[in-house]
Amino acid sequence: MGGERLSPERAAFLQQDFATGFPGHLGARAVEVGPGFWEAVVEVRPEHLQQDGFVHAGVLATLADHSAGYAAFTLVPADRRILTIEFKINFLRPAVGERLRCRARVVRPGRTVLVAQSEVWAEADGAPASVALAQVTLMAVPAERLGG
Amino acid sequence: MGGERLSPERAAFLQQDFATGFPGHLGARAVEVGPGFWEAVVEVRPEHLQQDGFVHAGVLATLADHSAGYAAFTLVPADRRILTIEFKINFLRPAVGERLRCRARVVRPGRTVLVAQSEVWAEADGAPASVALAQVTLMAVPAERLGG
Amino acid sequence: MGGERLSPERAAFLQQDFATGFPGHLGARAVEVGPGFWEAVVEVRPEHLQQDGFVHAGVLATLADHSAGYAAFTLVPADRRILTIEFKINFLRPAVGERLRCRARVVRPGRTVLVAQSEVWAEADGAPASVALAQVTLMAVPAERLGG
Amino acid sequence: MGGERLSPERAAFLQQDFATGFPGHLGARAVEVGPGFWEAVVEVRPEHLQQDGFVHAGVLATLADHSAGYAAFTLVPADRRILTIEFKINFLRPAVGERLRCRARVVRPGRTVLVAQSEVWAEADGAPASVALAQVTLMAVPAERLGG
Repeated sequence: MGGERLSPERAAFLQQDFATGFPGHLGARAVEVGPGFWEAVVEVRPEHLQQDGFVHAGVLATLADHSAGYAAFTLVPADRRILTIEFKINFLRPAVGERLRCRARVVRPGRTVLVAQSEVWAEADGAPASVALAQVTLMAVPAERLGG
Repeated sequence: MGGERLSPERAAFLQQDFATGFPGHLGARAVEVGPGFWEAVVEVRPEHLQQDGFVHAGVLATLADHSAGYAAFTLVPADRRILTIEFKINFLRPAVGERLRCRARVVRPGRTVLVAQSEVWAEADGAPASVALAQVTLMAVPAERLGG
Repeated sequence: MGGERLSPERAAFLQQDFATGFPGHLGARAVEVGPGFWEAVVEVRPEHLQQDGFVHAGVLATLADHSAGYAAFTLVPADRRILTIEFKINFLRPAVGERLRCRARVVRPGRTVLVAQSEVWAEADGAPASVALAQVTLMAVPAERLGG
Repeated sequence: MGGERLSPERAAFLQQDFATGFPGHLGARAVEVGPGFWEAVVEVRPEHLQQDGFVHAGVLATLADHSAGYAAFTLVPADRRILTIEFKINFLRPAVGERLRCRARVVRPGRTVLVAQSEVWAEADGAPASVALAQVTLMAVPAERLGG
């Protein structure tokens, strides 16, 4: 794999990159990263909720997928991009609270295809409840293939 | 099932309800609904993109899940709420364009557990490309159980 | 792709190959094949059932996965092998009857990653009931990489 | 839940029940069980293989699903049956070896809907390699509803 090293510069770049685009718009930010591992949080805002007052499944799914993707990023060379091939997510209970926390871990590193698992917790008054579990399949592609 | 009737009043209520909360924040709106069927669109905005300029997987997943949920809503009594038990989504190609369109259809109606399939297209210059396919498992629960 | 041609010789080879190994042991056999399409049947035997007398989910999953794999085989060069990366399957109702029928279709062809959907019917007294829906992600790999 | 007690009689009954029907035909047998936990093995036979000599994905899926189901059985009253609503399984590497081992754990107990995760290892010369990870959604239904 060659993924056991994650330089501080690379880690800092990825943490900044993580918070761009749509997840950044939701307020997602990385809090701890390592080789094959990614932890991130989102402060819950009113616009994240669904019609019954729970955090919308789409917010949980976005956080689970994005964290899995960056856990994969920590294991591939810098000239690779990560795309999500597919994911599956179970919602374990309605998500209520002021903060979401996600931990993602690569369970199958690979040069082209990687598999990660993500768990999402909702923290209400600081007490975490596990609200979602995802299994994510990712693909590492050369950056030039994306026209990037 | 009793799902074959969908009154205009109920359809109008659900269409309005669909656009509240997080999906409404993304700009999702219903364009055609029927018993067990839901079509919705989202105009793509810069904040929907990911780090490579494609629409983020989380936006596609939110639209696929939410449309499936409302396809299910059209088949259950008005005192029921729909929660997503789980979903799985494949991303078929990078999503680029000015609009997303999703069609969701209930493939397994049921009193408690329903299954739907959603397909998402990205429309670039009006030409649609299929970008995601989801299979969604939903649960109909009495509204009072949600404390709502 | 180059998958639009499927020579009679290739089709015959794949149909024979389909019925080898574990699926052959279950009695699976192809009944109609085309580019990106595969239909197969299994005659239900007592050893296919689970503890309540329904066809076991594992038999349905095997048929759904294997048919998806051979739908993919029809679209790749003869020096490629197909491996399943992952699949997801919903069981729509308990499966009872004397025969299972599966239709698999590639919905996302690709040089390396392909996506297929499979539907399984149980036929009781000849009347089919849809019992399972699967979404399958497959990978085409050069045969020599498998040591084969 | 009331699932913290698992009487020796109930455990013995479930272990015997586990090995009936299709999984018993494959040679699956329980080796360790507890509340919300199930470990089982299958000795690999030639008829379990696929066309390239690896254990067929369908065998791994059957073992993962069936073990998850019985992990759920340990947590529900004796008058309930467990049906699989759906599962998703990732295949991490080709499975070779003389024995498969599966550990399943319920991660979301519930009166009606339960969620479990299963991991499957292939043991070659006694050395285990993780070959599959599944996430399984199960439903507990009153036995009389199955006509059983």
